[in-house]
Amino acid sequence: MSLLVTGSIGIDTVRTPHGVSENCLGGSAIYFSMAASFFGPVRLVAVVGPDCPFELAKVFAGRDVDLTGLEVRTASKTFRWAGTYHENMDDRTTDHMELNVLAESPPPVPESFQDSTFVFLANTAPDLQHQLLDQIEDPVFVAADTMNCWIQEHLGGLKALLQRIDCLVINEDEARKLAGEQNLIRAAKSILSMGPDIVVVKKGESGSLMYNRDEEGFILPAYPAAEVKDPTGAGDSFAGGFMGYLAQSQSTDFDRLKTAIAYGTVTASFAIDDFSLHGLASADRDQINDRFESLRELTTF
Amino acid sequence: MSLLVTGSIGIDTVRTPHGVSENCLGGSAIYFSMAASFFGPVRLVAVVGPDCPFELAKVFAGRDVDLTGLEVRTASKTFRWAGTYHENMDDRTTDHMELNVLAESPPPVPESFQDSTFVFLANTAPDLQHQLLDQIEDPVFVAADTMNCWIQEHLGGLKALLQRIDCLVINEDEARKLAGEQNLIRAAKSILSMGPDIVVVKKGESGSLMYNRDEEGFILPAYPAAEVKDPTGAGDSFAGGFMGYLAQSQSTDFDRLKTAIAYGTVTASFAIDDFSLHGLASADRDQINDRFESLRELTTF
Repeated sequence: MSLLVTGSIGIDTVRTPHGVSENCLGGSAIYFSMAASFFGPVRLVAVVGPDCPFELAKVFAGRDVDLTGLEVRTASKTFRWAGTYHENMDDRTTDHMELNVLAESPPPVPESFQDSTFVFLANTAPDLQHQLLDQIEDPVFVAADTMNCWIQEHLGGLKALLQRIDCLVINEDEARKLAGEQNLIRAAKSILSMGPDIVVVKKGESGSLMYNRDEEGFILPAYPAAEVKDPTGAGDSFAGGFMGYLAQSQSTDFDRLKTAIAYGTVTASFAIDDFSLHGLASADRDQINDRFESLRELTTF
Repeated sequence: MSLLVTGSIGIDTVRTPHGVSENCLGGSAIYFSMAASFFGPVRLVAVVGPDCPFELAKVFAGRDVDLTGLEVRTASKTFRWAGTYHENMDDRTTDHMELNVLAESPPPVPESFQDSTFVFLANTAPDLQHQLLDQIEDPVFVAADTMNCWIQEHLGGLKALLQRIDCLVINEDEARKLAGEQNLIRAAKSILSMGPDIVVVKKGESGSLMYNRDEEGFILPAYPAAEVKDPTGAGDSFAGGFMGYLAQSQSTDFDRLKTAIAYGTVTASFAIDDFSLHGLASADRDQINDRFESLRELTTF
């Protein structure tokens, strides 16, 4: 089935204990598309300014990533983010951020993309997520991400969005904030009562958990990484593997969802192996499968 | 096979967001023995003062816990600990502590216990762990726990102990400190280079991981708890389930060790269901098995 992602493209500067990567390619739509492209075609909807220095056709060469939905907005500027990861690599500080084009209206969804069946709305203002979703004719499975600032400042729009989507993919701290509940299991169940059939909580180094409205659950550790060079994009790479596998398998029953979480865990593990897109870009499908089997071996008793 | 535990018995006062439990029964040897007794007989070696208000024969009534190794030291006083758990239930503050009898010489291992084959040395000063282990004739599998203060102040004794034991069971922060390594996978491998064949790292709400010297690994999430009333004793209950299963199955091959980690995860989950020993004491073996199967279902893909 057809998979569409709406999200950001960024010019990132990332500092970690392993080094600095300046003005490198980043953004949720980029990490998501790279990860999902291991499983099948991806339609990308995103907007940059004319200052964007990256040739995305080259970045995605050899992958089935359709860039028809890439808008270059001449009167604007590309999103920029600079951040520093600290010793434990799960905490980060934003050093600098320019929303630029992300603070404007969202890019239009091209007509040829409007029949998309699997849709991922990466983190942005809930109003923009609504506008993007409005343009999809008859989606089968919609997942979305969000973050603290929208929970704090646009809760109404976010709650309305939760009634329109099938799956929320969210960080653990955000899940706690959204639910107003410290215990993560109760937080997940509280979020389900707000609308989505499925909630996936990302716990960074500690893995992820998923619950559905039938009280089925799944908990998976992260793939054990002996070296994390750059955690940027891990969450979006997780979502890309998750949605990429689901769209390819044309099913969202709970067993498929569990397998999808495992593939998302694997694609995230490649993302953090190196700075920017390098970890994901240098992986191949055989390596993805090897880590998938290794993850199964590491967690089976 | 015969399982022996050496550890503390304490008079605990515990504050959590769910309430207060004053002067209740605690201590590593108690939680360990209760958890291990679901699987087979346990030999307890511990020391209290005459002020100890608990009738342990009654506490363990109906369970195969041999109290021959319980010393009541008339000239001393029982260990006391008071602590407060904060909102996230993984962090705690020690409000008050009196080592009392724990600061003295260890209790003797009774002659009838000296042929024990499975031995757990709960957290105490490494010198005392050495003295206790010296009294076991020919142990088959020895596991030990430790904590930050011994890593900081008795590193020599601890490193010598690591050369004598088969398995170290340790918290994640302590593993990082002992290895001088932030990344937990590398920390685990570094600890293996210090002597033990197996290292088990307890990650609280995030579960546990295990590695052996053959580079085999296992990672398991915690059992999902919608309500944690009192995390005290979770680590020792984990160790009790782990060692209890191993002693019962008379094997320590890696598949058995994985199953043992899962049983430890389950016994820990009962420990935190209620204050003091109440969670573990009110469980039965069928419930242990049910949660074991549920944990497998929750983690299998």
